[in-house]
Order: sequence, then C-alpha cells, then structure tokens
Amino acid sequence: MKEQDSLAFRPLLLERQEGSATHQLAAMDTDPPLQLRVFDLNCWAIRYLSKVRQERIGMIGDTLSQEGFDLALLQEVWSERDYCELKQKLTACYPYSHYFKSGVIGSGFCVFSRYPILDTFLYQYSLNGYPYMLQHGDWFCGKAVGLLIIKICGIIFHVYVTHLLAEYCRDKDAYLPHRVVQAWELAQFIQHTSKGADVVLLGGDLNMHPGDIGIRLLRGWTGLRDSFADADRFEGCEDGYTLVPANCFTVNKELQPFPLGIRIDYILYKGLSRFVVKCDSLVTTTGTAPGKSIPYSDHEAVIATLSVQRREEAKGSSGSAVGPELVDVVNEARAEVRVRLHAAERQRYSNGRMASLALLLLLLQAAMGLSSLAGWDSPQPFPKFSSSLLSLLATVVLLLWMGLYVFHTIEVRVLQGTEEQMRLALQVLQDKLSSM
Amino acid sequence: MKEQDSLAFRPLLLERQEGSATHQLAAMDTDPPLQLRVFDLNCWAIRYLSKVRQERIGMIGDTLSQEGFDLALLQEVWSERDYCELKQKLTACYPYSHYFKSGVIGSGFCVFSRYPILDTFLYQYSLNGYPYMLQHGDWFCGKAVGLLIIKICGIIFHVYVTHLLAEYCRDKDAYLPHRVVQAWELAQFIQHTSKGADVVLLGGDLNMHPGDIGIRLLRGWTGLRDSFADADRFEGCEDGYTLVPANCFTVNKELQPFPLGIRIDYILYKGLSRFVVKCDSLVTTTGTAPGKSIPYSDHEAVIATLSVQRREEAKGSSGSAVGPELVDVVNEARAEVRVRLHAAERQRYSNGRMASLALLLLLLQAAMGLSSLAGWDSPQPFPKFSSSLLSLLATVVLLLWMGLYVFHTIEVRVLQGTEEQMRLALQVLQDKLSSM
Repeated sequence: MKEQDSLAFRPLLLERQEGSATHQLAAMDTDPPLQLRVFDLNCWAIRYLSKVRQERIGMIGDTLSQEGFDLALLQEVWSERDYCELKQKLTACYPYSHYFKSGVIGSGFCVFSRYPILDTFLYQYSLNGYPYMLQHGDWFCGKAVGLLIIKICGIIFHVYVTHLLAEYCRDKDAYLPHRVVQAWELAQFIQHTSKGADVVLLGGDLNMHPGDIGIRLLRGWTGLRDSFADADRFEGCEDGYTLVPANCFTVNKELQPFPLGIRIDYILYKGLSRFVVKCDSLVTTTGTAPGKSIPYSDHEAVIATLSVQRREEAKGSSGSAVGPELVDVVNEARAEVRVRLHAAERQRYSNGRMASLALLLLLLQAAMGLSSLAGWDSPQPFPKFSSSLLSLLATVVLLLWMGLYVFHTIEVRVLQGTEEQMRLALQVLQDKLSSM
Repeated sequence: MKEQDSLAFRPLLLERQEGSATHQLAAMDTDPPLQLRVFDLNCWAIRYLSKVRQERIGMIGDTLSQEGFDLALLQEVWSERDYCELKQKLTACYPYSHYFKSGVIGSGFCVFSRYPILDTFLYQYSLNGYPYMLQHGDWFCGKAVGLLIIKICGIIFHVYVTHLLAEYCRDKDAYLPHRVVQAWELAQFIQHTSKGADVVLLGGDLNMHPGDIGIRLLRGWTGLRDSFADADRFEGCEDGYTLVPANCFTVNKELQPFPLGIRIDYILYKGLSRFVVKCDSLVTTTGTAPGKSIPYSDHEAVIATLSVQRREEAKGSSGSAVGPELVDVVNEARAEVRVRLHAAERQRYSNGRMASLALLLLLLQAAMGLSSLAGWDSPQPFPKFSSSLLSLLATVVLLLWMGLYVFHTIEVRVLQGTEEQMRLALQVLQDKLSSM
C-alpha cells in the first residue's frame, strides 16, 4: 500500500520535470499546448465533527505548496479559519485565492490559483434536501456552484466548483429528484455563463456515479468531457474511485453495495470555439496521502493534467452534441422530477390539512377560554393543566406543519419550474433534431 | 386629462401603420433595421389586496391583444390564475409566454412574446429585506431576475425581467444596502449570462430613481442604455415618471417629497458586437389607461420602440466603458455595503447575546424544576404559574432571537461576499485603467 501511495503523484512529478505550466506558458506563442495541473478534493473539514481536521488541513496545505499545481479546487472547507490558514501557507505559491461565502455555514468552496482571478459569481441551488432530515443536515448548508474567471496566457478559463446533495441510501434515495434538479441547474448555469469562455473546467464532489441520470444530463447538456474517461494515462484507485474502503475515514457500511468503491468526484472540461482540451493524465490518491499514514480526507483527491491547444480554425458550435440520446436523457430526468412533484404536492396537502386542524383546535380552545372569562355558564370540560398542555401542543403542531407547508410549497414551485424548463428544452431540442 | 390619455399610444399606433415588426422582419436581409415594440408594466396584482385587480388584468390583456407588441414584460402578477387568464386571452397574438416560478408566492414575473422563447433561467437575489419587517413583507417574496432567450429573425435577444426591493422612506431608507446588493447581483448576472447575446434588454420595476447609486452601478457595470434618456421621441408623464399623483391608486403620502412623481420603471438595452440598438420612441401611460377611467396599475406602463441594426464590422468589446467614473461608482456602492455590514454584525452580536440569555434562563429553570422533582429541599422561589409563563417567554425569546441570529449571519456573509467581489472588481478595473 505504502509503495502504491508514494507513486500516486509520480506522473505529476514527471510532468513538472518535463516543464512546468509557467515554463510552457512562455513558449505558448511557438505553439506547444498550455499544460495545466488541476487538483480537486472534498476536504471533509467540519469543525468539531471531522476527525484529525487540523492535521489534515496542514497536510493539504503542505502538498499544495510542494506540488505547485496551477489550480486547486477544494470543497467542504466549512470554516473560514481553515481557509485563512491555507491562504497564509499558500500565498507564495498561489498568489490568488477565493472563498465563496453563502448560507449560514458558508458554501465550503475555496480555490487557490497561480493565475489572476478576474471575477467570481455564485449561484445557490433552489432545492437541497428537506429541513426535517436533521440527521443529514444538507438543507442547512447553502449548496451552490461557484464560478471563477481566470486568465492564463490570454486564454479565458471559466472554472466552476460545486458540491451536490449527498446520497445516503442508493436503493431508496429520497434525494435523487433534488440532485437531478441541482444537476439541471448546474448544467444551465454553466451553459448560460460560459459563452465568453475559451475553456470550461468543472471540479467537485457531484455525489453521482458516472452512469447516473444527473451526470448524464449534466454532460449531455453541457458537452463537458470526463477527465477519467479521456485520460491518456491513469494512476490511482481502480476505476478512478474516490470513495474507497482503503480510506480509514470511510464508513464501510455506506460502501456495502460497492465493496471496491465509487467514483463521485470529478474534473470535467471542454474547450470552446478556438480551443481543444485533452487530458494527459489523471491521478487519484489511494486511501492514504502519499508518504503519510492518514488520508487527506474521507474522499480521494483527483489530479488532472490537461493540455489546451489553440485550434487552427474556430469551431462554430460550442454547446453539446444534439442527438436523440440527449432527448432521452432529458425525458428521463423530467420523469424523475415529475414523480417527486406529485409526492411533494401530496405532502403539501397533508401538511396543510394538519396545520388547519391544529388551528381549529386552538380557535376552539380560545373560544372556550373567552366564554369562561365572560362568565357564561359553560362548565370547563378539561382541567386547566391539560387544557394548557393541549394549547401548547396545538401551537407547536400549527407552527411546525405550517413551516412544512411553506417548505413543500416552495419545493412544488421549483419542481414545476424545472419541469417547465425541461419541457421547453425538449421542444427546442426536437425542433433542432427535426431541422437537421 | 382624458384627451392626453387617449394620445398615450399614438406614436405606437403610427409605428404600426408604418409597418409592424413582423413585416419589417421579412425585409431584414435588405438591411432596414428590425423594429421592436416592448411593453413593461408592474401590474400590482396581489389577490385580495390590490384594488379592482380582475378588471385591471382584463384591461391589460385587452390592450396587449389590441396593440400586438412584440414583447410584454409584466411584474407583480402574483397569482398564477391571473397569468393563465392572460395567457388564454393572448395565445393568438403572443403564442409564446413564460411564468417564472420561485419562492412561496412566486416571482410575479411573466413574459408574453410573439417570437419563440428558446430558454429561460432564474436567479434569486441573496438579500431581500428583513423578515421582521412584516408590514412590508418583501422578505417573503422571492425577488429575482428572470432571463429569457428569444430569437427574432436570427438575432439572439437576452431579455431580463426583474423587480428590486421597494423603497418605503427615502430619507431613512433601511433597504438601500440590500437594493445596492441586488443591483450588483443583477449587473453581474447580466454580464455573466449575456456573452452569447446579440441584443440585451432589461425591463422592470427597479425601485430606483435615475441618479441613485444602484442604477448608476447597474448601468456603469453593464453598459446598458436608458430608453427614456436616449429616445428620439417621448410622450407621457413629465420626465418619464412612472409613479405619478394623477394615478388614482398611488398613495400620495409616499410621493410627498416628489409632488410631480418619480421614475422607477425602466426599459434598458444594449447591442453587442455586431448590433446597434437605438430607441425610436418611448411612451408612458399618464395616470389612466388610454380610453379608460382607471389605470392599469398603480405604476404607469412603459412602451419602447427600439430599432436593431446590424453593424458593418463587429465591435470587439461588448462590456461597459471602463473609466474612472465607474471606479467611483463601485467605490460608492462598496461603501454602502460596508456600512450595512458593520450594522449587521452589531445586530447579529446583540441577537446572539439575547438568545444566550434566554437559554441561560431556561437552563436555570430546568435545573430548579429538576431539583424540586428530585425532592431536594429547595423552596420554589416563584409560583408555578409565573414560572411556566417565564419559561414560555424564555422559549419564545430563544427561538425568535436564534432565528434573527441565523438571519443576520446569512446577511453578514452575503455582504462580506459582495464587498469582496466589489474589491476584486475594483482591482481589475484599476489594472485595466492603468494599462490603458
């Protein structure tokens, strides 16, 4: 294991010996491709909850500093203090960095770059789990996608970093429709904001297996390529897995249906109009950090070496390849959204009914209280204590179920909106196909 | 007054006699400009609250149908039933329409178009007032900006519709920093999503006077032109006012500092790269709908006739004109954000302290209750009823102030994020200026 670990970064080190990105940048005019090394990791850095957090943040900082990647895309850096610690350590090597602020706890995303960050933008997903699933707590984190515009040697990179809703149980995945909505919003956000880009890069923990509907939708709609599938050379965990049993922080029970591991962390990319991007090599860590006894995180890091080459002639279309398969994928995603829409409508109805009953009970009690205060001759049917307790219970039920009614109303509206957007997308796709 | 009203649409009617947009579209190849008539109105259609709502919605539908605009951008159509009624009436004249769904009540935006809508996207603003300002209720509406991609005769239009946070008191405007953040997010959203557009159009109730910091920021950052300022011909209320005392639904008290009215509804536009857009005429209604005894809404409608001309040669830059004035504007907006940031931090701190005190009181009472249950010889210091009342009070205070703490934490994060974004923008602007 140890030996395998120490090999984990070897292709990168070789790449660096052959010529670092900066070195190659200077030679860009004489046409060799621009080579870019991108590091992506879900850092699992939750204060008070994640194991050996500080030590791991230190290790991540040391590795980023030693390896000198061009870009490091980190997720789950929930504490700004951890970001500041990393920033302090990495200022010399990565003079540009950004921490995306959102929600109560933050987005958890931060990016370290060797090249100037020209602009940033954040889009928060409309749906992100259920507030009553307290044991998971996803609803309380502001899951989002962050965009950074970075200029490297005159080439405009639109770099996206994201983290989608987790999957807790694959057989009965209550979060699947929300994740599909997030994947759709991510795809839409990338398509709408990348028209001015030369190269699009997306890194993050997508919480989806490579064949899942959400990732097929995302890749089909945006035309993004998978660095694992396209890499000339690969080294790391079998099949590029990023959640593996060899990682001592992995809860093996969660991996039960997949004893060898799963791949849910990705680096995706595409070149637009005048640029072609290809993946020279992809490396993942393999359970422990190279040369260390513990891993960086409960996820494996993904490191891609990409080369960007200027095309002879600009290509007209920069979008996805429109084909009947894409229609099928959007249809499948739309069906998923519709199933949840009907369930959410039913839940909203039953929440509304429950809140109404509680309100009725409260009104009844208020009327009884008033009549007894007015001195009308109605005997108090319950003892005072039980009556107060009943009122308290009715108030709690009213407040909670009213909150749930509001939540499911928002959910229904977002699902209806997404379904409508997908319907429109399908119509436009079919028009395109029929005119081809 | 009546006579003036009946004149309100005259320039449009003349335009239509000269040749409708469709007619001119066919002739586009022979180079005359494409002429486009855009209608914008804040419809003030809140069920149960807005006066003569149904009659007004009927009037709006009739006028849209008779006038046959190319695009109608409506705000504050809060009820989907009203949208459906309009849609049913307008299907023949405007075969394409979209209603943006968001939040509990919806976004209130809908768009009717004579040309195919290819795609839609919605971005919800991060800040939108305060939940405890119940009398205003802005926080509960999902204020947002909607994007529609519409293709007219091969020209790609990116049409944005929005409605920013209201201004209730100009002297002590508690919402100013949130409106500045919304204006910044709107400007950023337009800049990031309009790179693929030929023409950008923005219509909506911006709740800002023409010289306000938010609108200067929006126009400076995006390079959008004001149809009122640039119109060759104008007819309507003095200075293009869209909230006027002559409107019977206007609360005159709100207009006290501006007895003649204010202009807060806009149609802004710009042509990108290969296209030039100019405003041939601008018309507003003047207190009542033409030929009717009541107005369409408490706002005046704005109707712009734009002409789009293909340029001989593509222009390189499509963004705003970078100048030292823009640096001043961004600096001014940033200062506004910083002032609110400090206030929000103070509010968060005091909310946190209050919630902690309530928690302490509850814990104390729980300890006393437990010790009395355990039979320890501590005399009950309060009567049982007062003790229960105190617990109830402490619980309510704890819940409310905890909620406020969470709200102000989110506010602080968004303000910090915006301030950081503006800092980055200033840096990039200054770099550009110094290299010019």
